[in-house]
Amino acid sequence: MARHIYDCPLRWADMDSLGHVNNVVYVDYLQEARVDMLRVHAPAQGGEELAEGVVVVRHEVEFVRPLVFRPEPVRVESWVTQIRAATFTMAYEVLDELPDGDRRVYLRANSVLTPYVFSQERPRRITAEERDVLGRFLEPAGEGA
Amino acid sequence: MARHIYDCPLRWADMDSLGHVNNVVYVDYLQEARVDMLRVHAPAQGGEELAEGVVVVRHEVEFVRPLVFRPEPVRVESWVTQIRAATFTMAYEVLDELPDGDRRVYLRANSVLTPYVFSQERPRRITAEERDVLGRFLEPAGEGA
Amino acid sequence: MARHIYDCPLRWADMDSLGHVNNVVYVDYLQEARVDMLRVHAPAQGGEELAEGVVVVRHEVEFVRPLVFRPEPVRVESWVTQIRAATFTMAYEVLDELPDGDRRVYLRANSVLTPYVFSQERPRRITAEERDVLGRFLEPAGEGA
Amino acid sequence: MARHIYDCPLRWADMDSLGHVNNVVYVDYLQEARVDMLRVHAPAQGGEELAEGVVVVRHEVEFVRPLVFRPEPVRVESWVTQIRAATFTMAYEVLDELPDGDRRVYLRANSVLTPYVFSQERPRRITAEERDVLGRFLEPAGEGA
Repeated sequence: MARHIYDCPLRWADMDSLGHVNNVVYVDYLQEARVDMLRVHAPAQGGEELAEGVVVVRHEVEFVRPLVFRPEPVRVESWVTQIRAATFTMAYEVLDELPDGDRRVYLRANSVLTPYVFSQERPRRITAEERDVLGRFLEPAGEGA
Repeated sequence: MARHIYDCPLRWADMDSLGHVNNVVYVDYLQEARVDMLRVHAPAQGGEELAEGVVVVRHEVEFVRPLVFRPEPVRVESWVTQIRAATFTMAYEVLDELPDGDRRVYLRANSVLTPYVFSQERPRRITAEERDVLGRFLEPAGEGA
Repeated sequence: MARHIYDCPLRWADMDSLGHVNNVVYVDYLQEARVDMLRVHAPAQGGEELAEGVVVVRHEVEFVRPLVFRPEPVRVESWVTQIRAATFTMAYEVLDELPDGDRRVYLRANSVLTPYVFSQERPRRITAEERDVLGRFLEPAGEGA
Repeated sequence: MARHIYDCPLRWADMDSLGHVNNVVYVDYLQEARVDMLRVHAPAQGGEELAEGVVVVRHEVEFVRPLVFRPEPVRVESWVTQIRAATFTMAYEVLDELPDGDRRVYLRANSVLTPYVFSQERPRRITAEERDVLGRFLEPAGEGA
């Protein structure tokens, strides 16, 4: 089981004037989960570069049901579904685990990311070390989101 | 030509610690363009309900090149690619039109949306009046994003 | 000791392009602490109305030192310094408690708030019940911020 | 008359779940006005450093009346009220000018700012060149906010 669990705290300010967590904010939750996975919980160096030194190439986000503010965090599961030469793909589920063990899913998403050299404003290849870091979270598509 | 043009002002605060407009903020630009199209420029009533009384079902966002803060707004073109019983699909391009007439595209996206009854927390069908509003911006997929 | 403790989680997105938690985001931390104090930890009803049914009349915020993103939350202490007929004043300190017991303060602030009837867009007086709720957090000015 | 005028565009997302522009977002409007004044409209170099290379030392914000989303921008007037060795003070008013010439003020604020050397994480003195830039917007306190 390779999924990373991030308990994402909500903010009251995340709600829009319709009383739901705004669809835009959800996308920030994914970003926070990714930073948590790669910066906080990955082995030194390899992960930190990936956490902050990437740009998003593509997002696909499916909003399953609305989420409203509550003091309890919401769970974001994230994992890696593909590692290529210069890009990798992450999948996410935002959900609550209910007392009976059921999963109430709010959002499913995929992101394609590429490491990026900000000083030169260009993408770069994934290093062998980073490949190892990402490999720990690898769960090829088909089983999850 | 059915595309709606929204000149989206950037904010300095839209940049993240890497100096780019953050990928999450881009998604807000799409939301602002949609509100502008349906609330501001659509005929009375029909559009206003659609602008604010919808939830996002799905986003697909392709980040083509990074955008950095500048005082000039960036152009968001938005249009409708499909109208179904209870959902409609919008497409977007975020771009600059260059002096030589070329288009420098930063982002392409699609969103599926559904009208929503917030007091009852359920989606609803699109009315005939709303279908007319959306029809003004209809440009079926294949030509644009 | 009447101070409310809120362990405020930071988000990577809270940093601006200069690498600090942006001064604007700090003000959101105060809002989150206030909602936590009055909605989550106050007795039923009285607090909930105060948490969400208020508008800010005045903020005074002193930025003592910069804060940068880290996975650990930052502590927000908040308390009430004055209760009047239709307004109350809250004070805040954002800080880390260091291992040696010292307090590294990032921000000190005061806010004057008034209960607000949103349906009529007008302020209202504080009820006796709300006065009790606020009284639990009362620590008149002079000792704290 | 030394005031800088910034026509600040609102975003639909600026509204909170109570339907007002959130008090936190207002503080961002001030930041955007300051960047506009010092980066966009000040003479080369001197202003740009001040626009982005400063940290906020203190904010005082008085919320006069609520603001709700509308497609028209709101005016932010900003000016300088004091220039010292290492800090300067700005004042702001957020307002609409009404057809009859009256001013409907939403917010008045003051900020104390200091130039900052981010690479060394320390404040620095204001240069002579920057003093000139700031002097163009100088309107000592007592007349305005």
